Amino acid sequence: MGDEKRVLTMKTINPRAVEMEYAVRGPIVTRSVELLKELAAGAQKPFSKVVDLLNSDSFPDDTKQRARRILQGCKGQSTGSYSASPGIDVIRQDIADYITKRDGHPSRPEDIILSTGASDAIKTVLNLLMTGDSGNNRAGIMIPVPQYPLYSATLTEFNACPIPYYLNEENKWSLDVSELKRAIDEAKGKCKPRAICVINPGNPTGQVLSRKNIEDIIKFAYEEKLMVLSDEVYQHNVYAAGSEFFSFKKVMTEMGAPYCNMELASFMSASKGYMGECGFRGGYAEIVNLQADVKAILLKSISAKLCPPILGQVVIDTIVNPPQPGEPSYEKFKKEKQEVLSLLKKKAVLVTELFNSIEGITCNEVMGAMYAFPRLHLPEKAVEAAKQKNQSPDFFYCFQLLEETGLCVVPGSGFGEKPGTYHFRITILPPLEEMRAVLEQFKLFHMKFLQKYK
Amino acid sequence: MGDEKRVLTMKTINPRAVEMEYAVRGPIVTRSVELLKELAAGAQKPFSKVVDLLNSDSFPDDTKQRARRILQGCKGQSTGSYSASPGIDVIRQDIADYITKRDGHPSRPEDIILSTGASDAIKTVLNLLMTGDSGNNRAGIMIPVPQYPLYSATLTEFNACPIPYYLNEENKWSLDVSELKRAIDEAKGKCKPRAICVINPGNPTGQVLSRKNIEDIIKFAYEEKLMVLSDEVYQHNVYAAGSEFFSFKKVMTEMGAPYCNMELASFMSASKGYMGECGFRGGYAEIVNLQADVKAILLKSISAKLCPPILGQVVIDTIVNPPQPGEPSYEKFKKEKQEVLSLLKKKAVLVTELFNSIEGITCNEVMGAMYAFPRLHLPEKAVEAAKQKNQSPDFFYCFQLLEETGLCVVPGSGFGEKPGTYHFRITILPPLEEMRAVLEQFKLFHMKFLQKYK
Repeated sequence: MGDEKRVLTMKTINPRAVEMEYAVRGPIVTRSVELLKELAAGAQKPFSKVVDLLNSDSFPDDTKQRARRILQGCKGQSTGSYSASPGIDVIRQDIADYITKRDGHPSRPEDIILSTGASDAIKTVLNLLMTGDSGNNRAGIMIPVPQYPLYSATLTEFNACPIPYYLNEENKWSLDVSELKRAIDEAKGKCKPRAICVINPGNPTGQVLSRKNIEDIIKFAYEEKLMVLSDEVYQHNVYAAGSEFFSFKKVMTEMGAPYCNMELASFMSASKGYMGECGFRGGYAEIVNLQADVKAILLKSISAKLCPPILGQVVIDTIVNPPQPGEPSYEKFKKEKQEVLSLLKKKAVLVTELFNSIEGITCNEVMGAMYAFPRLHLPEKAVEAAKQKNQSPDFFYCFQLLEETGLCVVPGSGFGEKPGTYHFRITILPPLEEMRAVLEQFKLFHMKFLQKYK
Repeated sequence: MGDEKRVLTMKTINPRAVEMEYAVRGPIVTRSVELLKELAAGAQKPFSKVVDLLNSDSFPDDTKQRARRILQGCKGQSTGSYSASPGIDVIRQDIADYITKRDGHPSRPEDIILSTGASDAIKTVLNLLMTGDSGNNRAGIMIPVPQYPLYSATLTEFNACPIPYYLNEENKWSLDVSELKRAIDEAKGKCKPRAICVINPGNPTGQVLSRKNIEDIIKFAYEEKLMVLSDEVYQHNVYAAGSEFFSFKKVMTEMGAPYCNMELASFMSASKGYMGECGFRGGYAEIVNLQADVKAILLKSISAKLCPPILGQVVIDTIVNPPQPGEPSYEKFKKEKQEVLSLLKKKAVLVTELFNSIEGITCNEVMGAMYAFPRLHLPEKAVEAAKQKNQSPDFFYCFQLLEETGLCVVPGSGFGEKPGTYHFRITILPPLEEMRAVLEQFKLFHMKFLQKYK
């Protein structure tokens, strides 16, 4: 791809990322990875206890084999040592294999970096896109409204310019190209548009984008010369009949040139899906079509963080490389995975139906992810009462809900919403029976609230 | 303490940190921590296997008790769930108890935040100190030369202004107040000096600061209205006879008013000491004497990272709350700890003596930490040859060392050094016998090098 079509070149990358040096992971260290092994032998942890577990009858053979393979991947070191900054090689390979199988198109381990949860990788890529510090020199990043607040928080921290685009609540929270166009046109001259963030399946909005919608977004990004940052951490959480997860990488690849050569970063996490192992802080990004010298800066920029937690990397491996048919753990794994996902699906249906049955509430179908984002049609008096307290009306509502029922939901104002609309985000994680009870409690509160402010 | 004496107030804190919002950990969520427990019950992981291990005879009773206590500290959730952003309460308490015992002065759990390694906490505090983006509006941070490159890398990333001060190689790499004064005076008008970073025991320089030196630094910081950031990750690694680790907090507290009221952040890690569990990415900071509203911003700023890895937090707990005399694990723990530390001490003596026995090398005593930082007195011809290759002379030297012997050391230029002086950093982590062999190999290389360029 010609330089003039690229978002990131050595001329347009964040100059601070180019400048930054981190000697203890510099060229000499890079050159010596092989030899470090020998030196690091002194830092070896006592393996005896691990070996005990690896020989224990309490675990199936394939599980132990898996553990042995990853320990070997730590190259003679233990899980207590630092890994290379982009992560353990064998796990990068497993991720690439997973993506290859998922999309039906090749993925390369060199394009994978592991991270401390997906948030960390997202911040790493956004940092490369930063431009200047003042006025119209600042980088502009298109973010959805409503959005997961990591994006707005990070852009504030980086002094970048958010370019908010509204999701279309009337059409299943999809992305309208005309709205994308409006948003970027308004931003031009005020900042330097550099990338578009898309969250699919959506957080907090629970939509799953259609393939057609993804194609339109890719074409738009190409026309506007934007890097696509696709937050795909909920790729295993799709519930709605007829919905399917398509990765931006897959769609872009199948669209052929010039789209298949676009710079793209896709993010995944160990904290979502059917495992939800959030305490391990595992995540990764696949970043494709970067210029070689830009990629070198990317790798340098993560070196100052040393490495993501090793056990978070290991949890990622269990997600991308699960037990296979015929292996001793397979049946148990399959059963647990199906149970978790089918319960989530039931709850997705439950909340959608229940919210739509309540006066003054409408709610798009929870197609994926782990959230419903119902809209509150609040009485004018409630809106007034909130304003008198200097609170957003949905904050006002959610705070009373918390005080009176103990139910904790996040007001829509924290995610952004169209002016004059009010929402909240509720997760579908609690057990089914508990959710039923909670939703009944919610309904009673809501009726009382409407009564109070009618 | 009066506002005019403070480094951080709502007027002088990084405005981006004030602006940043992170709704999913905002006021409603904070208000509902108790109730989240109930909701989160649905996200509970299967405890059965953990319980198996907790009842296994393979582990001593105190170890199992410790594990149970921390699991309870996770408040009904497992180690696979997110914790509160500043970390698990019971672990914050254990850290405060450890500091109280270490210093003989009270430490409060509210002043402790856990982090993803110490690096993460250091970046968090530096971020609060940022001021403007251009010229003399930028925050100035005093950093030692030589320094651990995290500091320079982070200041570049943040577009802050490093104020380098030279450590005194002629006096055990100590800090001379006259040099601190020179450095800050030269920086005034060019940036806004905000903090002084001190690494004690030193990385890469291996010195342990005297109590008197610490007092002088504190007085200097008070006079210049600087926050003290003390990187004390090697506090358990002190080898030299007559040397002792004094925390800045302890010394500051014992100096009384006004010094005991100064804003201070001290950093600790699970990656160093006698455990070296770097793969878990555990760390913490104790941050004292902040204004209440500034502290609220600090807590908000870490909320976007969700939480540090839970198992990293647990490893920190094992460090600050080790087995006590009388407990079943104590003798084994004591023996292993003593073995590790006494071997490190032997190697500290070995490298110091060996380097000083070689022509063209001088080396300060390795008093603490895990490194020697010997000075290379290179022949003029070698310096010339390096310049012709556009390399720093010590990089030139270290690269040849790597190519010819496989020995990987980091050139001093990556840490900063006085112009015209050349060094490298070598760790003392490999096993004793291996170190002996490696150092003999090194000696042969060095002699050949001197011969080649004499």
